[in-house]
Amino acid sequence: MDDLTHTDFLGGRVQAWQPARGYRAGVDAVLLAASVDAAPGQSVLELGCGVGVASLCLLSRVEGLRACGLEIQDAYADLARRNAQEAGADFEVVTGDLTAMPATLRERQFDHVFANPPYFKRDASVAAADPGRDMALGGDTPIELWVEAAAKRVRPKGTVTFIQRVERLPELLCAMQARLGSLQLMPITPRQGRESQLFLIRGRKGGRAGFRLHAGILMHEGETHQRDGESYTSEILAVLREGAALPFPG
Amino acid sequence: MDDLTHTDFLGGRVQAWQPARGYRAGVDAVLLAASVDAAPGQSVLELGCGVGVASLCLLSRVEGLRACGLEIQDAYADLARRNAQEAGADFEVVTGDLTAMPATLRERQFDHVFANPPYFKRDASVAAADPGRDMALGGDTPIELWVEAAAKRVRPKGTVTFIQRVERLPELLCAMQARLGSLQLMPITPRQGRESQLFLIRGRKGGRAGFRLHAGILMHEGETHQRDGESYTSEILAVLREGAALPFPG
Repeated sequence: MDDLTHTDFLGGRVQAWQPARGYRAGVDAVLLAASVDAAPGQSVLELGCGVGVASLCLLSRVEGLRACGLEIQDAYADLARRNAQEAGADFEVVTGDLTAMPATLRERQFDHVFANPPYFKRDASVAAADPGRDMALGGDTPIELWVEAAAKRVRPKGTVTFIQRVERLPELLCAMQARLGSLQLMPITPRQGRESQLFLIRGRKGGRAGFRLHAGILMHEGETHQRDGESYTSEILAVLREGAALPFPG
Repeated sequence: MDDLTHTDFLGGRVQAWQPARGYRAGVDAVLLAASVDAAPGQSVLELGCGVGVASLCLLSRVEGLRACGLEIQDAYADLARRNAQEAGADFEVVTGDLTAMPATLRERQFDHVFANPPYFKRDASVAAADPGRDMALGGDTPIELWVEAAAKRVRPKGTVTFIQRVERLPELLCAMQARLGSLQLMPITPRQGRESQLFLIRGRKGGRAGFRLHAGILMHEGETHQRDGESYTSEILAVLREGAALPFPG
């Protein structure tokens, strides 16, 4: 993985090395980090952290946060460590498989756990040319096991937040319903009145509140697609450029 | 059930006798009927049809449709038959329990099946004073059994549509995911940017398309709650007053 790029996030508040041609973190990682309601001094775990963009964004927003990331691919985990070191961030990166949780994590619980699991089932998609990108886009691990690992690693009353493609909403929602409570679904709506392709979902360990379906987060103003950078809503611009939070309501 | 009222639906296109103090059909039944994409000459089954409002609304919109309703409560089934007769509608009402499907229905399949199951779990709600209303609002039958009955009675490639409260979305979605395909979720949004309390969901027997999450159907214009009758969006007014369809997109 010699060919790297150095990318700015949150208007330059976060910078990360990532492979030029592998899986590249983007808006989704930033939205995920913005939605995690972590408080100063708390601890968080990111499952499948890649080069660490979501965790680094969350660390830049919440003072005194301690973050840990689990990543199965050596090369991405190494980049995450490099990114953490260059940022001076309190971000511990563990190389390992969430279905065989490393011993260093098996004894610990975190205030919040979050993840951006692969978007496609491998059996339903064509493999990407780059093996690292292939794993990040369409890993083999069933989404139920991501939820199981998250539910085990979060403390009682702590939250578990995922961002995912709408196609996988039923399997993710059913898995979360089996292991967590107080589920809340937040669609991510490209434009007013349009179908959603992505969503955020949050559960609370031991939560007993009823399911909630929020209004979609509106990404772009206007009816037609112009250049993305120019049409973001002010709420999304504040998240992407200034590192604002995007909390679940209530 | 001596105390009856005669209520207009769809601007008077449909009229129905219903108990003055029991469970009363309303906007939900009309939205459900509007969302069923039935074609002339097809057959439909409504599970838990009550006094028949949803089926009568659908019959008034789709020419040459044949409808059948299953209702567990004698008094409601009798009113449904009376309403069908007075409307001259092709609406057969069967008294019976969907968990012990009557023989007359067990051998038949329908092009579409739809239902407005009770909104509350009995163990989580206080019983209503009127026993008929109590059954209609919080029946004991698990929602999985509604879905199972619907999936059995619909023909291959036929649709199953439910309207339900958001609190029960996870259990309904998981049950539909287990037995149907091509699921589509349509939130019903009270006002722009507000959380949804109701939703429509549709599956197709043997469908293989990916899950879709549509933009919410907007019920009311404006930011604040005025009088409902005056603030409906034009799309909803067309459904409620003129019997327009409210199809699932695509």
